[in-house]
Amino acid sequence: MANGCKNGSAGREGGMENLRVVLVATRNPLNIGAVARAMSNFGALHLRVVHPYEKAFREAVSAVGAVSLLREAEECASVKDAVADCGLVVGTTAIGNREIKHPLRSLDKAGPVLRKRLAQDRVAILFGSEKKGLSNEDLSYCHWLLHIPTRGEHQSMNLGQAAAVILYELARGTRSFEEGVKHGAASMETVERITEVMLACLVKSGYVGPRSKELAEEKLRRMVRRFALDEADGEVFLGMMRKVEEELRRK
Amino acid sequence: MANGCKNGSAGREGGMENLRVVLVATRNPLNIGAVARAMSNFGALHLRVVHPYEKAFREAVSAVGAVSLLREAEECASVKDAVADCGLVVGTTAIGNREIKHPLRSLDKAGPVLRKRLAQDRVAILFGSEKKGLSNEDLSYCHWLLHIPTRGEHQSMNLGQAAAVILYELARGTRSFEEGVKHGAASMETVERITEVMLACLVKSGYVGPRSKELAEEKLRRMVRRFALDEADGEVFLGMMRKVEEELRRK
Repeated sequence: MANGCKNGSAGREGGMENLRVVLVATRNPLNIGAVARAMSNFGALHLRVVHPYEKAFREAVSAVGAVSLLREAEECASVKDAVADCGLVVGTTAIGNREIKHPLRSLDKAGPVLRKRLAQDRVAILFGSEKKGLSNEDLSYCHWLLHIPTRGEHQSMNLGQAAAVILYELARGTRSFEEGVKHGAASMETVERITEVMLACLVKSGYVGPRSKELAEEKLRRMVRRFALDEADGEVFLGMMRKVEEELRRK
Repeated sequence: MANGCKNGSAGREGGMENLRVVLVATRNPLNIGAVARAMSNFGALHLRVVHPYEKAFREAVSAVGAVSLLREAEECASVKDAVADCGLVVGTTAIGNREIKHPLRSLDKAGPVLRKRLAQDRVAILFGSEKKGLSNEDLSYCHWLLHIPTRGEHQSMNLGQAAAVILYELARGTRSFEEGVKHGAASMETVERITEVMLACLVKSGYVGPRSKELAEEKLRRMVRRFALDEADGEVFLGMMRKVEEELRRK
């Protein structure tokens, strides 16, 4: 763990590089480790701790894949020190019974605001202790508060899970992808061949009688189109049906 | 824990009521408890388990706030049974070195698709064991796969955190809000009065000399407008400055 609150110069990259996750009086080493792991997962590499329980902090160093992140965490003497070099300070709250004196945003609404600020300013997100959350004094350093929208009957989230959810939202869109979801659709020529070959199979197998052939053909044509076959699957499926039809014909 | 895989009728409410979270061969009781807690937080109340380690499952019953959810979890003999009554089956993967044979979506892209399907169909989301993830056989029951977009250097998430992030995305927008973020802006009359009173303070205190008064007034006018004061703060701030000005005049 780095000694003292360095408050170095702003990150060059913007985005998650500008984020400072600040844990205030966190108690449970499993939770500290879990926060560190989620930070590492989502590319938030700068952790600051205020009044950590020393033992908890040392034990947390076992956090999977986040050892160096914990080792480089900055220990700050106060919330004031921990946020001194930040342009925006946001506290987290589970709401509960506490009277909120700050502007309050649900995470989904806060996401775009935070991502925009992270692109240009250093932003601190504060998490309080597992038992009591952030104190009113801690909150007085915050510009506004952030709440993860949970079920009224069960609002209180585990610290490590809350951190993961918030970091996911902050990193949203940076590694977005879809693969293999839409290949080119099968051509109508292929789809119609499939329809013909299937109909031949159904007639030869006796599933469709000679009198109902026309109606069956219409139904089948619509059904095959609902399959929404892509190019590759269309060819494979046509090949399968052709082989079946061949075999039926041979018999 | 409910005995056997009930596969009852589809939920009446749609949305999270239609979700089935399926844990396959999960080992760690802390992880099972964490998944259950996140489910309870986000209103996903239907858990199914396939090949759980019995001991792990029993120990997990300590999950904060999610005891009844765990007690009512359905134990299924196979993945096939666990997804039999679902219209869409989605597997989760950390990718890693595994060759992906399925369509694959990042969670942010998958969110809208899943929320749409949940509105009408029962949807199963599968999580594999902590060590190996879902097997190729498990994956063969899935329509497509879901990946939480994480940093290439540290892709593997903790199970409870991954579940929390996915459930947050599925519940996205259902409890969205902003409070106290924008009050009505202070009227220009108030803002101009503040400017005047502040200028008087600055002159009386000697901060602004008589020759630079005009330039200072312009600068001050622009600065006060950048404060973007809301109505309530405008009145309070004006009151403060008036008192200071009064005191300066009295001396």
